[in-house]
Amino acid sequence: MLIGGLFLEKQELLYEGKAKKLYKTSESDVIWVEYLNQATALNGKKKDLIQGKGELNNQITSLLFSLLKEAGVHNHFIKKLSKTEQLIESVTMFPLEVVLRNISAGSFSKRFGVKEGTPLANPIIEFYLKDDKLDDPMMNEEHIQLLELTTAEEIKKIKKMTLEVNTALQKVFKKIDIQLIDFKLEFGKQADGNILLADEISPDTCRLWDVKTGEHLDKDVYRRDLGNLVPVYQEVFERLLKLESI
Amino acid sequence: MLIGGLFLEKQELLYEGKAKKLYKTSESDVIWVEYLNQATALNGKKKDLIQGKGELNNQITSLLFSLLKEAGVHNHFIKKLSKTEQLIESVTMFPLEVVLRNISAGSFSKRFGVKEGTPLANPIIEFYLKDDKLDDPMMNEEHIQLLELTTAEEIKKIKKMTLEVNTALQKVFKKIDIQLIDFKLEFGKQADGNILLADEISPDTCRLWDVKTGEHLDKDVYRRDLGNLVPVYQEVFERLLKLESI
Repeated sequence: MLIGGLFLEKQELLYEGKAKKLYKTSESDVIWVEYLNQATALNGKKKDLIQGKGELNNQITSLLFSLLKEAGVHNHFIKKLSKTEQLIESVTMFPLEVVLRNISAGSFSKRFGVKEGTPLANPIIEFYLKDDKLDDPMMNEEHIQLLELTTAEEIKKIKKMTLEVNTALQKVFKKIDIQLIDFKLEFGKQADGNILLADEISPDTCRLWDVKTGEHLDKDVYRRDLGNLVPVYQEVFERLLKLESI
Repeated sequence: MLIGGLFLEKQELLYEGKAKKLYKTSESDVIWVEYLNQATALNGKKKDLIQGKGELNNQITSLLFSLLKEAGVHNHFIKKLSKTEQLIESVTMFPLEVVLRNISAGSFSKRFGVKEGTPLANPIIEFYLKDDKLDDPMMNEEHIQLLELTTAEEIKKIKKMTLEVNTALQKVFKKIDIQLIDFKLEFGKQADGNILLADEISPDTCRLWDVKTGEHLDKDVYRRDLGNLVPVYQEVFERLLKLESI
């Protein structure tokens, strides 16, 4: 495939996750990503093949990472290749899930006994160790330093970027009548130490509630057996497409 | 009872916890504490009456709070009244459990898959919401601010005091061949905003390992069904008494 004047060849499989396959390419700093149709919840205890999910998440992520680039948030996205494929810059991932919460929901509500839907006075950032075997335990910043997952400078930068993502995404979703309840980000580091937003941003990784009806437009539909996930993700994608054309 | 020239009268029960009863006194800023013989673990799911435990914890706590006062750590301890009773200053408790860990053990080891007994590069401080119904969830500092449990200044002060307690207690326990693995503290605030170390410090709230044998000299004996808790707590008390007389 010819990309930006370069012939780029998809090479061997680097990594297979729950929702994506990553391939090497003929360019050492470029990764070829294929989004899968697998849905998982409860740390993999619930698992299903859902036709069309990979397509939707690839397209939504491509769109949101492009918008975030425009908003000045450095990220790994290069180009959407097809409905299920995209190119990204190669980074060394921090083994961290960074969660930002605007409104109480999910595990936060359970953990602290705060009713779902309660607005939080400030956006709250939480860190989780990305480790399926340990069930992704929550960490504080001292844990992150102790386990040498990031430097003190890096965690500051990651928090700053997470708040920037929140500001940008809130603006985007507000325009399409969606409330951004919370989301999970992952970050990586380039060889020169530059930190990039990585992974995906989709209804798999965000809680999105319809402003008017309060309906879940995200993976809670699957987690909580509220119905078919595909038309819901399709709805988010279509609203985002309208936004692009404004 | 005549205390420091004042006649102090024990009045009505203020609070009954798992291991202590607190009574009002004729002095509004003085509380009369009675240590109980009840042992609990697993957030109250395991519960037993253990004759002699209240006595030992009251005496160990009295001794350690006195030593901490000498070391400059402001705390609520006034005076031991009897084997099971002590007087403390009245404070408004922060609903926080503050845990400091020097060596990996217990829930930290489980949570992060770090072998028990692994020394940590730096002492790690963790906060838990004191709420039995929610099973005392771990919190980060943003959660503490959000739930308005302390001010930003207060949490800084609490962390500083926790590190001071660690330095002082490590010194004490080292002299009696005990390794201070981790411990849990609670703090309270006087009417003028002054923060005091409160609650207790005993083998119920610390992990203490014999330096030579590695034996547990703490509540893990009870939690893990390793034997009778009383001779173990007695051993800690006797070693501390020797220290006093040096």
